[in-house]
Amino acid sequence: MMKLYFARNACSLASHIALAESGADYEARRVDTAKGEQRSPEYLKLNPKGRVPTLVTENGILTETPAILAFVAQRYPQAQLAPLDDPFAFAQVQAFNSYLCSTVHVAHAHKVRGSRWADDPVALEAMKKKVAQNMAECFALIEREMLRGPWVMGDAYTVCDPYLFTLEGWLEGDGVDIRSFPKVAAHFERMRERPAVQKALAEES
Amino acid sequence: MMKLYFARNACSLASHIALAESGADYEARRVDTAKGEQRSPEYLKLNPKGRVPTLVTENGILTETPAILAFVAQRYPQAQLAPLDDPFAFAQVQAFNSYLCSTVHVAHAHKVRGSRWADDPVALEAMKKKVAQNMAECFALIEREMLRGPWVMGDAYTVCDPYLFTLEGWLEGDGVDIRSFPKVAAHFERMRERPAVQKALAEES
Repeated sequence: MMKLYFARNACSLASHIALAESGADYEARRVDTAKGEQRSPEYLKLNPKGRVPTLVTENGILTETPAILAFVAQRYPQAQLAPLDDPFAFAQVQAFNSYLCSTVHVAHAHKVRGSRWADDPVALEAMKKKVAQNMAECFALIEREMLRGPWVMGDAYTVCDPYLFTLEGWLEGDGVDIRSFPKVAAHFERMRERPAVQKALAEES
Repeated sequence: MMKLYFARNACSLASHIALAESGADYEARRVDTAKGEQRSPEYLKLNPKGRVPTLVTENGILTETPAILAFVAQRYPQAQLAPLDDPFAFAQVQAFNSYLCSTVHVAHAHKVRGSRWADDPVALEAMKKKVAQNMAECFALIEREMLRGPWVMGDAYTVCDPYLFTLEGWLEGDGVDIRSFPKVAAHFERMRERPAVQKALAEES
């Protein structure tokens, strides 16, 4: 059975939902980041980066959200979580997830993880100040150029959707009103109705 | 014929090398970021993010380095640039590339692109100050945990290698001595000997 290590309010929710959608037999284990469990020697043995998510599979350990999402889609093809037979369409899924991990998640992280990139308290404050603007710009681009509707890739639900849902859930805390982006707001509500989303959220609460 | 839009000293070099390795028929077009060409209306039509790389394929447009790298590997399977028949091994390739794009590239970007995340000049200086430390920590992890040798994934050359090579090339400018990481330094030299690397570098100069 696969084991997913997650933290609350973290990007690991995307992998958690994808697993729930896939029909895989999995166990979700919470890492208490407030207690620093992600830096415990036991956890660092699994994931030397000291981050979530970590997925323990029958073949070995995987990290990084876009990689776990693509793996779940490929490992459980019957769940149809990505266009596996079309390299270009699959690359579009990857491009969207890559944008979320390298740009949108990073924009969000400057609110409470600024100490990754600077030590000066003035800098940490300056970073916090810009988070709402950056997240709003990212979601304006998603609304205008990326989210085809009803799902990210159009009519087909893919692993892009749980990842986008996870980051949509951060907007309120980042000072951005999701209602400014009607397609994004509708996507968020549509996701909340899915049984797999409700299952993953319940397992994390 | 595919067209790759690249900028000098940018992460687009990874996609450029992968194309050169693949045997694909491609054309490389320079975007002059010093002149702001990435924000011209013509370029924004291709890539509304205003970044490089952008790959124009026969099917449509792709952005984001990890997505382009996986696409090139899947589109040109005879070049054997990724373990395409093994979802777990493919996910390990993806995980490595995802770490480079979401953590290592981001660490580097705080040197000259700090204005993405803060406006205060004090903050920009504070970010610059931490780049060498962060890049050294990333490459210490790569040296210790990720780079199997001789190539990133071991005996098989994959699309991880041009991406790592690209970021290795940034270390000197970031104030990190590559010789502190013997496996990384050897990888960098090994890459420079490959004809595809020399071809891509020549096309960018």
